[in-house]
Amino acid sequence: MTDFALWTRAVQARIEAALARALPAPELEPKRLHEAMRYVSLGGGKRVRPMLALAAAEAVAADCALTEAAACAVELIHVYSLTHDDLPCMDDDDLRRGKPTCHVQYDEATALLVGDALQSAAFEILAEAGATAEMVALLARAAGSRGMCGGQAVDLASTGKHLDLAELEFMHIHKTGALIRAAVLLGALSSGRLADDRRAALEHYAKCIGLAFQVMDDVLDAEADTATLGKTAGKDAAQGKATYLTLMDIREARGYARELIDDALAAIAPFGERGQRLAEIARFIVERQY
Amino acid sequence: MTDFALWTRAVQARIEAALARALPAPELEPKRLHEAMRYVSLGGGKRVRPMLALAAAEAVAADCALTEAAACAVELIHVYSLTHDDLPCMDDDDLRRGKPTCHVQYDEATALLVGDALQSAAFEILAEAGATAEMVALLARAAGSRGMCGGQAVDLASTGKHLDLAELEFMHIHKTGALIRAAVLLGALSSGRLADDRRAALEHYAKCIGLAFQVMDDVLDAEADTATLGKTAGKDAAQGKATYLTLMDIREARGYARELIDDALAAIAPFGERGQRLAEIARFIVERQY
Repeated sequence: MTDFALWTRAVQARIEAALARALPAPELEPKRLHEAMRYVSLGGGKRVRPMLALAAAEAVAADCALTEAAACAVELIHVYSLTHDDLPCMDDDDLRRGKPTCHVQYDEATALLVGDALQSAAFEILAEAGATAEMVALLARAAGSRGMCGGQAVDLASTGKHLDLAELEFMHIHKTGALIRAAVLLGALSSGRLADDRRAALEHYAKCIGLAFQVMDDVLDAEADTATLGKTAGKDAAQGKATYLTLMDIREARGYARELIDDALAAIAPFGERGQRLAEIARFIVERQY
Repeated sequence: MTDFALWTRAVQARIEAALARALPAPELEPKRLHEAMRYVSLGGGKRVRPMLALAAAEAVAADCALTEAAACAVELIHVYSLTHDDLPCMDDDDLRRGKPTCHVQYDEATALLVGDALQSAAFEILAEAGATAEMVALLARAAGSRGMCGGQAVDLASTGKHLDLAELEFMHIHKTGALIRAAVLLGALSSGRLADDRRAALEHYAKCIGLAFQVMDDVLDAEADTATLGKTAGKDAAQGKATYLTLMDIREARGYARELIDDALAAIAPFGERGQRLAEIARFIVERQY
């Protein structure tokens, strides 16, 4: 196993343990809600956003309790968005991370409250670790109507419509890019201070890998089968959603993702050795199979 | 018009203006989402929670930009919870504040995203005004699974069941009490510091008025007609929800609310003249007709 593979496993175990500690125990009332919050948050997920937060902290030589809290907070925002996305009024999906989605396993009202409560939990964890107002505001903007939620609204509105590359990337920069950017910046900000040039470099890195991640998602959605993906495959195309593959073929899409990753790697070159994990994550994004 | 009535109107106008400024403009993309966020947040509402935040700030001689931000943040958490509560998988209500509910006026997916984005907006507004980590954590806990969301889960689980007074009050202390407490404490904390005895007094005040508010909600829901209430009347009883009126008659309920208010007034007596608005709000809660 490569050093990077070992590191990703260590991060996954660390985040799993941190989330298990941070989320309310299933014995606490209301038990069903707490059990469902743990059902969607624990025992799965690639934990790409926590990896990014920890890797960005490493790039600026920080790794403290606040770094881990930031990593957990972005992951909980991500998990809440998946839970709400899967609801019948949104993507109406039955399968997530190889398990029944929350509203299938529990019920719709519980899935709604689980997402709502996980969003609160993200801010609670971040604030309890002593985050600055700047960090809280950054996460809130990334999650809100000018970030992730806004991207989902654009996604919904564009179903069945043809989007050009600029429109498609506007959607992705909001829907998934905003939270990836927040993961990287919060990790780096957990060190206390972040010089403007370093911040700009990390923002460019985040933008490029966020888009590359989405390009590869579309490629994998078209190529993979449901079992490998852990969620329903081929669904985007079937639902008439705009994807990169309506604008280019799979070979071109893979090439575009590789270009974006090269751009990301160039942006973080000034971090030298300390940027190793960020570089490895970028490469992993174009090489992943699921 | 009494001095208190003038004050409530001034607060309502101030909060309306502050929310109109703080929420993204309807011309910004995604326009439909931003328009819907404004639809549910502006042009209505008693603004009881902002009144409490401003009155608590007055009690400790504070009123700054952070006070107003705290008032807006708790109101947005309240508005998001109403938007999600009204969804078909929850209370399935068509009417709110005398207008069609968000999922009726727009659609379910939009109403879901509106609630999600308003929760983010609450934390964004609070953090951008320079809130401390303590204030952010307090709001997050009040909104989350051990606060408001938890109370809603208990409410759902107890529909059709008989609750005794202790169980009913456990639900209300979470479902509505947690956010009322947050409004009072955030208003007071916006002054910078809050002595322990003052904090305890305000917490007791908040607990009493929160319960009294709920007792009166049940009384008014049973007595009022839909037009006066601005939402569907008599619905709780029709849905088999536990209310105070399954445990006592209307006369007893009114008496109980009055006792709670007397208790709240005693708690804030040490604030003297500065506690005048808090006292007036407490009295308003038992005297209100809608």
